[in-house]
Formats: sequence, structure tokens, C-alpha cells
Amino acid sequence: MSQVYAARRARLRDRCSAAGDAAALISRPANVRYLAGGAPPGAVLLLGPDEDVLLCPRTPVPESTAGHVDDELRLTVLPAGHGGDPAVAAAGVLARAGADSLAVEEHHLTVARHRALGSAAPGLRLADLGAAVEHQRIVKDEEEIACLRIAAEIADHALGELLESILVGRTERHLALELERRLVDHGADGPAFPTAVATGPHSGRPDHRPSDRRVEEGDFLSVTLGADYRGYRCLIGRTFVIGTSPADWQIDLYELVFGAQRAGREVLVPGKGYRDVDRAARQPLEAAGHSEGLAPRTGHGVGLEIDEDPQIAPATMGKLDACVPVTVGPGVHLPGRGGVRIDDTLVVRPEADGGPELLTITTKELLAL
Amino acid sequence: MSQVYAARRARLRDRCSAAGDAAALISRPANVRYLAGGAPPGAVLLLGPDEDVLLCPRTPVPESTAGHVDDELRLTVLPAGHGGDPAVAAAGVLARAGADSLAVEEHHLTVARHRALGSAAPGLRLADLGAAVEHQRIVKDEEEIACLRIAAEIADHALGELLESILVGRTERHLALELERRLVDHGADGPAFPTAVATGPHSGRPDHRPSDRRVEEGDFLSVTLGADYRGYRCLIGRTFVIGTSPADWQIDLYELVFGAQRAGREVLVPGKGYRDVDRAARQPLEAAGHSEGLAPRTGHGVGLEIDEDPQIAPATMGKLDACVPVTVGPGVHLPGRGGVRIDDTLVVRPEADGGPELLTITTKELLAL
Repeated sequence: MSQVYAARRARLRDRCSAAGDAAALISRPANVRYLAGGAPPGAVLLLGPDEDVLLCPRTPVPESTAGHVDDELRLTVLPAGHGGDPAVAAAGVLARAGADSLAVEEHHLTVARHRALGSAAPGLRLADLGAAVEHQRIVKDEEEIACLRIAAEIADHALGELLESILVGRTERHLALELERRLVDHGADGPAFPTAVATGPHSGRPDHRPSDRRVEEGDFLSVTLGADYRGYRCLIGRTFVIGTSPADWQIDLYELVFGAQRAGREVLVPGKGYRDVDRAARQPLEAAGHSEGLAPRTGHGVGLEIDEDPQIAPATMGKLDACVPVTVGPGVHLPGRGGVRIDDTLVVRPEADGGPELLTITTKELLAL
Repeated sequence: MSQVYAARRARLRDRCSAAGDAAALISRPANVRYLAGGAPPGAVLLLGPDEDVLLCPRTPVPESTAGHVDDELRLTVLPAGHGGDPAVAAAGVLARAGADSLAVEEHHLTVARHRALGSAAPGLRLADLGAAVEHQRIVKDEEEIACLRIAAEIADHALGELLESILVGRTERHLALELERRLVDHGADGPAFPTAVATGPHSGRPDHRPSDRRVEEGDFLSVTLGADYRGYRCLIGRTFVIGTSPADWQIDLYELVFGAQRAGREVLVPGKGYRDVDRAARQPLEAAGHSEGLAPRTGHGVGLEIDEDPQIAPATMGKLDACVPVTVGPGVHLPGRGGVRIDDTLVVRPEADGGPELLTITTKELLAL
């Protein structure tokens, strides 16, 4: 794997050189992990003119480095009890080496840290690296996609087992905890994000936090979960109905959201505009009179973070590339009644390769449990 | 409760006025929650010259606002699909109202957001609020301490139940998940932080992430967990030995750390310097030859965050006040063998009131399980 990380760093270094920056300082943890293989707590990565260095506030514990740091990378641990900021230490190192400019992640560094960097290295011009690493992360290699595929399998397994158990009478909180335990049972490093379980009037809400409400006969039950496998995070969302006979409004709403989600999935081809994907999934819901209260986006990229670029939203510029994993997850929530969300993780693939690769394969038929 | 939040805001407003700032923008979520009662995702709090406003990027979902927003507070939701930053919107509002200065949390705002604020309101002088709200949060009122007390009871219960179950052969991951389930069973809103379970050679490490290692006969087992109750977070850490007869080195190491932890607890009186508390807990470990590898601090404040001021560390200036909850948790880790950590949450109280109030009451005798 080492050459993978070295190649990623080389690509970023080229970009910095082209922008006239001698060095770059990466502080956002997911970006550090992408370029260094691992991101020990508080570590920053300095891409220097001569050498790359991972600066850590303390000796990383092997099992807790959030990944395995590239062996080829020089690792510097700040002196014990120093209590300092590795970013500030990095700026000092660079200034002493005579470098004149450093690109930093202004969307991640706080104003206070940025000022401390400037004070530690007054001769250093601080430039903005912008979202260069995030952009580099959008298109995944097959190793990364393999991790996402395993993460999705784990989530499918955990969800499948839950569906075989008795649900009525159990609380949202307990179902969520059980799903998270099952994710770990099946080999996840942990949940990719806090599992959402929403019943009855809560169902269909994005970002619902599990409450003490118990599953009742006749409820919609919507579940959103994902696994973290070697740092890569997937997402699956499904909505079920509890009891033998769904109400007509439930069947109608489910069909509507299912159709919208399918429409979004079907346009996932290289070259398609992000906002065109959003429009495909959004338009059927708006046409059915649900404009009010729709989420501001219908999907997003996934990878080392559960929510990364691209944003599948009405105003996002840009087009899909092959090998970009995204979620497609429209939903409708009717206040007081509940709603439906259906969410998949897919990888954009050319039509010649069979079109979008569906990673989360749990059925999307309306199951009555 | 509403008058509590209003009083906290009034105190902060006084501080801003004294510093010559017409308004303050609070963006750090725990600070928003402290002053507003709740912190919907992405919300910022504007303490204006005339009125306080909570600006939210979207309509908060009642169950997921992370607390209940003070009813007296004006709540503004950005237009749907606006996609904007409520902090930028707040700066715009202020500038239109003719305010000339705004104090912001430079240790929380990123450089990019700060610049966007400046662009949205070019006439507004941006000052630094610093850690004013964090400082205000250090001394707790009795309502806050009551929440911490309940959080500690919950953690004690969860840990007590675990000790009654069979541990040998179970993995660190599973024990951690079971503890987290038990926390929720006993009424926690969730774990206060990721539960740490460390066995055998992992034991005694700070911040160990649970692995697939199974508990074995003869292991040290160290567990650190805490509950989140209404936003307030406590911490308890204990170390046990697995099997009927601890080895001599285990008994000796346990006695050493226990003595150090007791020494730290006993000096928790108002007026004691933070670093004097650290020294009390650190000195016995250093005297026994464990200087190498000791954690940079032996405790810290707890409250709406599990890790907040004060820092109990060798170089921290400042003195304890009454009603400050802190952890005292020294530990020793012997590479390859394991170690001991013992951690409590206590509230500083005057000697006249009986001295430090121990919130986490699980026994600290060396239990052989």
C-alpha cells in the first residue's frame, strides 16, 4: 500500500508546486489518513520540499492510530509534555529550513491556530490549500471501492438479521444499539455514523436521533445505518411497515419515494451533472406536492467520511466521474404521520461496464414485518 | 430553566460590553447549548445589542436538537435550500442593523468561515471572544451538578452489571458495546465518549480503542466509560484483574496507582492550584520510576463536554473553585505487560461542606473477577 500513499502525496505536491507553494500542511483528519495511511489523534502531515513528515502530539498507539501509518513516512513525535500544536511545530520546522510559503487547509484550521502558525514562522507566507485533498479523494481506486463494498455487505447483514427478529414493542434506541452491535459482529471497525431508527411519526425524517418511542403495529419504521471498514464508510436506508397490512397512504407514499430513488439511481453515469441526478430524484416528489420540507439534497459522496463531495443537490456544479461512490436517498416526511426514506450507496460506472454498481443490496420492496 | 439561560447570556453580554464589543457570535456547539439550552445541528447564537437570536441552517427537529432550546429565544431558520452559513447570515443581520463590532470564537471558527463573515459584513470589526464561554462554564450550578450526578450513577450501574457477567473469552469490542447498551438501558442519552475496554497488554493505556482481543485469565482489564445525561458527561475508569490470584507485580502496580489517585483526590479543595493537583497524583508514579510514558495530564474538567477546562496538568495556571467537576485519573502502562488506570469524577467542595464530592462510587478495591 505504501506506494499508493506516496503517489497520492506526489499528486498533491505537484498541485502545490503548480500553485507556487513550497509546502503544504494537511490538518483535516480524513485528509491526513488519505495521504498518510493513518491519522493518529491530533497528527498533521507536512508535505515538505524535501521530505514528508507526520507530526504527532504524542507517540501513536498502534491499535488506535485510525489506520496504519505508511512505513515510508517520517514520523515525528513532539517532546512529551510539550502540549504544543504539531501544526505550529511544522511551520517552525519549515521556516528554519528556509521555505518561504506554506499552503494550509483554511476550511479546517481555526483562526486561532492559523494565527499561532503565523507567529511561529513570521517569514512564511501562508496560502490556502482549499479543498484540494477533498477533490482528490472524490474518485476512488479499486482498493478503496473494495473496502466500501465490504462495508456495505456488513451493513446489509446487520440489517437483514434485524428484520428476522421481533420488532414490535422495542424502542428506537435499542434497535439502533442492536444494529451497531451487529455491525461490529460482522467485522465493522464501528458504525459509520450514529445509526438512525425512526418509528411511526418519526419515520422518514433525515437525521432522526433514536428516542424511547417503541415500535407499534401499523408504524412505518425507517432505519439508516452504515459500517466503517478500514476507515471507509457506506450508508443504507430502508423503510418498512409494521404489521400485516399497510394502509393505502403508506403504500402510495412508499411507491412514490421508491420511484424517485430509482430515478436517481438510473441516471448515475459518468458525465451526468450532480444537479441533474438531484433533479431526477427530486422531481417526482415535487410533482406529487411534497416540495415543502424536502431535504436540501438527495445524496452525497462517501468514502473516508460518511458525508463528502460530491453533493447531490440543486445548485451543485460539476459532473459525475467513474469510480465515484455516492448515496441516493430521497425521502418524504409527513408531519405527525411519518414517512419514507430509501437510501443506497452506489459506485458510478460507465454503461459499458454495466452502469452503476449497487453496493447495498437489501431489497427495496415494501416489507411488512 | 429559561431564566438560567437568560442569566448566562446576560453575564456574557456584560463581558462583551466591557470589552467594547456590541455583539457576540457563539458557534461552538457546547457553548451554544450552554447559553441557549439546545444546539440544533449547525446553529449559531447571536447575542445582539437588542435581542438574542439562534440562527439555524434548517428547521430543528424537536427530538434531535441536542437539548431544548430556550423558549424565550428568537429562533431564525435560514430559507430552505439556502445552503448558507448561519454565522455569515448573522453577520449580515448585524451589519444591516448598524452594529460596528462582533466578537467571534476564533478558536472554533475556521479561517474560511471567518473570511466569509468579513466579506458579508465589511463594515463590521471582528474581534476575538476567546474562551469566554468555556471559562464561564467551568463553575457549575447545582442543576448541572445534578445532571452529572445522575450520569455518574448510570455509569456506575452499567459497570456494576458488567462485573457480574462472565468476562473471560469475550472481546474488548463486545464488552464496550455491551457497556454502551447498558448505559442507555439505565437512562443515558448515550455514551459520553467511546467506551474504552483494554485487556492484558492493552490495559492501562489512555484512549485505547477496543480491539478483537479476548479477555484471558491473568489479564488486567481496564475500562473507561461515561454516560451522557441531558448533555452532561461524566467519566469513570477502573482496572480489574481476571482470575483468582493476581500476580505480585499486578498487586504492586495497582497499589501504586491507587495511592496516586487517592493523593490527587485528597487535594481537591477550593484554592488549590491545578498543577498542584496534578503534582499530587503524578509524584508517586514518578517516584516509583514511571516518569517515562506518563500521560501529559492526570485529569480535566467535565460538563457539556467530556473534556473541558480546567486541565489538571503540570503547566496549567489557575486554581480550583468550588462546584468545579473534575476527573482524577492517573495511570501507568508497562509496554508489553499492561497497566492500571483509576479514574473518578468528583466535584470540588469546600472542606466545610465535607470536601470533594465523589460522583462515581464504584469500589476502587482491586477486584479479581
